[in-house]
Amino acid sequence: MTTPPDVFDPKLDLEMVRTVDVPPQLMWKAWTTPKHLLPWFCPKPWTTVDCEIDLRPGGIFRTVMRSPEGQDYPNLGCYLDIVENKRLIWTDMLGPGYRPARGGPLGDGECGMMTAILTFEPEGKGTRYVARALHRTEADRKTHEDMGFEQGWGTCLDQLVAYIKKEM
Amino acid sequence: MTTPPDVFDPKLDLEMVRTVDVPPQLMWKAWTTPKHLLPWFCPKPWTTVDCEIDLRPGGIFRTVMRSPEGQDYPNLGCYLDIVENKRLIWTDMLGPGYRPARGGPLGDGECGMMTAILTFEPEGKGTRYVARALHRTEADRKTHEDMGFEQGWGTCLDQLVAYIKKEM
Repeated sequence: MTTPPDVFDPKLDLEMVRTVDVPPQLMWKAWTTPKHLLPWFCPKPWTTVDCEIDLRPGGIFRTVMRSPEGQDYPNLGCYLDIVENKRLIWTDMLGPGYRPARGGPLGDGECGMMTAILTFEPEGKGTRYVARALHRTEADRKTHEDMGFEQGWGTCLDQLVAYIKKEM
Repeated sequence: MTTPPDVFDPKLDLEMVRTVDVPPQLMWKAWTTPKHLLPWFCPKPWTTVDCEIDLRPGGIFRTVMRSPEGQDYPNLGCYLDIVENKRLIWTDMLGPGYRPARGGPLGDGECGMMTAILTFEPEGKGTRYVARALHRTEADRKTHEDMGFEQGWGTCLDQLVAYIKKEM
């Protein structure tokens, strides 16, 4: 299993690190199975109303988020790297089959916003969870930060952990 | 070895198919080793003056082309899929480590232009070579076509075959 180069740069990128008391196997399942992803993937009162996952490099990762007002926001992405229970990488720069995509809220629909890198490491009976978002520029990092990366991803993680404990 | 979904669409994408009388192993070596790539990668009288290859998913594929007038044109890309002697996929939508990139001649430097998919299949003592370029839109396909995809990639292939026969 090859590891991609680590290019994390705090000027360009965002990172959230948390240790949670659910195991990597369940975190993985909740991230990679549509029925287990829908309940926690958006900070409430937003909801995730659709999800399509083709879990292979080049496969689609598509979600549709719905605002409290009923407006739908589709997100199209492509998986890049999949190491079961350990590492999941996807990007909205590409769509399925690695086709260049018009994705993300930046760039006026002309291209995507980020590559997401999740790592799950066992820590006792729980998981050390690292979520990174890689961006093109400092401006994109700032925009994503101002959109509420830390709080948004943190709230989703809390929802994820609560869902796993209750339902899985 | 997983295969990515095949999304080829003649409205969006370009394809060149040729059978050549050099084996896949040498085609592969000439595509993945900087010293063997430099001599044939640009249609003469353009030259390729630099090349960096980190042959793993997420690794860099960088080249610098020089015009006859001495102007340099850097190209930054990222490998996505590597199956030795068989399939090579990269994109200029991403840079090393899968970071979103400003790449390619389209999009005013805001994002990349294409994903390239090469396949090498043994045919007798030679190779059936298929080069595909996937684009975001019909307009991007048209631009790439007008830039001379068919002739450019065809000329490079002739140069590649001649180089292999003479030097490898």
